[in-house]
Amino acid sequence: MQKKKPDIDRVFHALGDPSRRAIMEKLSAGPISVSRLAEPLDITLAAVVQHLQVLEECGLVQTEKVGRVRTCRIEPAGLSVAQQWIGERRSMWERRLDRLGDLLAEPEENE
Amino acid sequence: MQKKKPDIDRVFHALGDPSRRAIMEKLSAGPISVSRLAEPLDITLAAVVQHLQVLEECGLVQTEKVGRVRTCRIEPAGLSVAQQWIGERRSMWERRLDRLGDLLAEPEENE
Repeated sequence: MQKKKPDIDRVFHALGDPSRRAIMEKLSAGPISVSRLAEPLDITLAAVVQHLQVLEECGLVQTEKVGRVRTCRIEPAGLSVAQQWIGERRSMWERRLDRLGDLLAEPEENE
Repeated sequence: MQKKKPDIDRVFHALGDPSRRAIMEKLSAGPISVSRLAEPLDITLAAVVQHLQVLEECGLVQTEKVGRVRTCRIEPAGLSVAQQWIGERRSMWERRLDRLGDLLAEPEENE
């Protein structure tokens, strides 16, 4: 089990696919084997394995094989990287709106 | 100026490109014209225009043309959609860890 360092380009790319987001939604309830993960999803086991590879490569998911069973779990660091980037953009934008609000609230000098 | 409804597939796909994230970073400081936006970025004006189209189509950016100048601004709804999806996954995952912690903290019945 080797942890991949999250790569923000690949994290966002990976989350742009609805099947991969469905896998992440399933995994957020807890670790699960690949075959049980594939059951409720309307895609083949081979496709699930491929999506899992993408999710593991970019640091969103960890998988571990014990005997014949491969178990998958969310790797929270991947989601953190994406959340932090978005949060920073939003907070910059909101600070800007606050400053605009302050400027509008100030009385004009010549009044 | 027509506002696009954010499309989560395309929002994540759009954010997977470093040039588009650089544009979003620039725009989070405030609205700016397309030509001023292109200046510090190491890409052609044509490429910036193309990236802006992708960002506008998925609901991350709004542009407005007044006279000959097209001004771009962040559309916060697009970032909200992505942030909400990630936040929900993380909070499900964290609740699960809390429950595990509670279980481990409970005294065993036969002790």
